[in-house]
Amino acid sequence: MSANAYDTIRAVAWADGAVRLLDQRLLPGRREYVLCKDAASVAQAISSMAVRGAPAIGICAAYGVVLAAGARYAASPGTWRLDIEADLALLAGARPTAVNLCWALDRMRQKLDAVGEGDPTLPLLDEAKTIHAQDLAANRAMAHSGAAWIAPGSGVLTHCNTGSLATGGYGTALGVIRAAYAAGQVERVFADETRPWLQGARLTAWELVQDGIPVTLIADAAAAHLMRQGQVQWVIVGADRIAANGDTANKIGTYSLAVAARHHGVKFMVVAPSSSVDLTLASGADIPIEVRAPDEVLALAGQPVAAPGADAWNPAFDVTPAELIDVLVTEKGAIERPDAHKLAALLRDLETRG
Amino acid sequence: MSANAYDTIRAVAWADGAVRLLDQRLLPGRREYVLCKDAASVAQAISSMAVRGAPAIGICAAYGVVLAAGARYAASPGTWRLDIEADLALLAGARPTAVNLCWALDRMRQKLDAVGEGDPTLPLLDEAKTIHAQDLAANRAMAHSGAAWIAPGSGVLTHCNTGSLATGGYGTALGVIRAAYAAGQVERVFADETRPWLQGARLTAWELVQDGIPVTLIADAAAAHLMRQGQVQWVIVGADRIAANGDTANKIGTYSLAVAARHHGVKFMVVAPSSSVDLTLASGADIPIEVRAPDEVLALAGQPVAAPGADAWNPAFDVTPAELIDVLVTEKGAIERPDAHKLAALLRDLETRG
Repeated sequence: MSANAYDTIRAVAWADGAVRLLDQRLLPGRREYVLCKDAASVAQAISSMAVRGAPAIGICAAYGVVLAAGARYAASPGTWRLDIEADLALLAGARPTAVNLCWALDRMRQKLDAVGEGDPTLPLLDEAKTIHAQDLAANRAMAHSGAAWIAPGSGVLTHCNTGSLATGGYGTALGVIRAAYAAGQVERVFADETRPWLQGARLTAWELVQDGIPVTLIADAAAAHLMRQGQVQWVIVGADRIAANGDTANKIGTYSLAVAARHHGVKFMVVAPSSSVDLTLASGADIPIEVRAPDEVLALAGQPVAAPGADAWNPAFDVTPAELIDVLVTEKGAIERPDAHKLAALLRDLETRG
Repeated sequence: MSANAYDTIRAVAWADGAVRLLDQRLLPGRREYVLCKDAASVAQAISSMAVRGAPAIGICAAYGVVLAAGARYAASPGTWRLDIEADLALLAGARPTAVNLCWALDRMRQKLDAVGEGDPTLPLLDEAKTIHAQDLAANRAMAHSGAAWIAPGSGVLTHCNTGSLATGGYGTALGVIRAAYAAGQVERVFADETRPWLQGARLTAWELVQDGIPVTLIADAAAAHLMRQGQVQWVIVGADRIAANGDTANKIGTYSLAVAARHHGVKFMVVAPSSSVDLTLASGADIPIEVRAPDEVLALAGQPVAAPGADAWNPAFDVTPAELIDVLVTEKGAIERPDAHKLAALLRDLETRG
C-alpha cells in the first residue's frame, strides 16, 4: 500500500536553518521546493501563493519570525527586538484575509517578548515547531469531531484545498473527509475545481489521488446542479477568518455553495482551528477581503484565455453568513448554527480548560 | 467609430456552396474559419463546438440539410428523399440538449417534403436563409422587449455566450444587454467566465470589447458574492430548451445563478426565440442533458490542469425551474413567472397571428 498523502506531503518544513516550501504554484505538474532564508522571501512566498491555506501560512510566518530574529540578532544583538518590527509588519501584510497569519505572529511576538538575552533563534524555533505540531493535532481532533456528523453512504462536496497542503498536515475540511472516508461513511467525494487558481483540480485532487480516495472534479458552476440531483449530503469547507458572530470568510465560491446548499437542504460544515476565529470583528462585514490581480482570471498558466481588452474582478474570498452554516467544527468541539453566544462559549470553555 | 461586433461577426454563413463557420474553439486567440462541404462535417463541427449556441446550431444544421440534399440529389435523383434520412439523423444527433437543432431540421423537412421534382438545393437554401434571417429578426425583437424591463443604472450579469456568435446575429440575452446598454439603462456588465469552455471569457468578452461595451469578467463562483454586494440587478441568460411548463435548460451554472439571484432579490431573465420551446416535454426533468468529456474540465487548451488520476463530471447544461425565472422573453413577447398556461397562451397567440 502506498503512503498516504497526509503522511508524505509537507507544505511547510523547517530544513537546515531555512523554511522549505512545496511550491504550490507548480503542482501537480512539478514537485519543486522554494527555500526561504529570510523573512522577506517568506513574505513573498506567502503573497505569491507558493504557500497558501490559512493554517499553512500561519505556520510559515512563524518560521519566518525565526529567520528574522536570527538575522536581526546576528546583525545587531543590542537592537534586534526593535529591528525585527519591520519583519513582523512585512509578514503580517503578506495576505490580508486569513487571520491565522496574525494569530501566529502574535504568538511568536509573545515568545519573542519572553526570551531572555542571547540568541533568540532556538526558543523561537521551538515555538514555531509547537505551533506547527499543534495545528497537526488540531486537524486530527477536528477530523474526528467532524466525521461524526456524516451518515454512512454520504456524498460530500468540498471547495478549494484544505488538506495537508493548506495546513500543518492532514487538513481541516479535507481531514474530516479523509476520516469519514476511512470510516466508510463517505461514498462519493466531489471537488470544485475552484477557479481561478484551481486549488481543487490541482491540489485537492492530487492529495486524494495519492490517498487512493476516488475524487470527481466539477466546474464550480455545476455544484447546484449536483445538489439538485441529490448526489451530495454535505458541503465541507475550511475558513480563512471567522468573525465573532460566526460569519466566515473562505475561498471565493464558498458563499455560493452555502446559498445553494440551503436551497437544497444539503448540510453545510465549516472546519477550522480556533486560530481562525477573530473575536475582534463583530461580523463578516468587517473582514478584509483580498482582491487579487485580474490576470488570475484573464490568463491561465501564463496563457491568455480571455479576450484582450476585457477586465476582471478577482476577489479571492467571500463571506458566508453564520445563518447558512449548519455545523462549525474546531479542535475544541463542534457547534450547530453558530452565533456570537455559542462561539464565545466554545472559546471561553477553551480558555478555562487551556 | 469601429463597426459593432454584431454587424461584423457571422458565426454561420453560406459561402460558395458551403457552410462557413467562425471556429469558436480558437477564439479569441485566432480568427479562423471551418468550411463544411457535406452534412457529416457540419455534424462534426456542431458536436465538437466549432459552432455552438442553440440558435446558431439550428441555423447551421439547416444549411447542413442544403448540402445533404444537393449531394444526395446529384448522386441519385430518384432516391435522394430516402437517402437524405441518414444525414438528417446524423445532424439531429450532433448535440442533444438544444432543441433548436431539431426545430430547424423539422422546418427543413417540411420544405423538403414540399419541393417538387428537380434539384432541391435552391428552394432548401432559400428556406435555410429564411430561418437565418428570422432568427436575426427575432433577436432584434427580443432585445427591444427585454430591454424594456431594465431600469436605468442597472448592473447586469450574464453567463456563457448568447451574442452574435451563438445566434443568427446580435444575440438573445446579449442582444438585450446590447440594446439596454445603448439606451443608457445598463451601467455595468459582468460576465461569468463560464467554465469549463470559457465562453464568457473567450467569446462574450470578445464581442463586447469589439462593441466598446466595458465588461468585467468574474470567476463563475464569484457571482453570489457580487450579488450580495448589490452590484447586479438582473441576471440575463439564454436557453437551449424550454419545457412546456417554463423549466429552462441552459449552460451549466445557470441554475446556480438562478438560486443565488432569488436568494438576493436579483431579477432573473431568460431570453430565447420560440424555437427554443419544446411543448412535447412537460417539464425540465424530461430534457436530455448532455454530459461532455471529462477532459474539458481536466485540461485547458490541451494543457492538463488537474492532477493525473482525477475524474471529472462535466454536464454541459442544467435546468432552471420556471419558478426561479422572473421574466421569459421571446420574439412574441415577454411573460412574467412563466408557467404552462402562460407559455401556451404566448405560443397560441403566435400561431393565431402567424
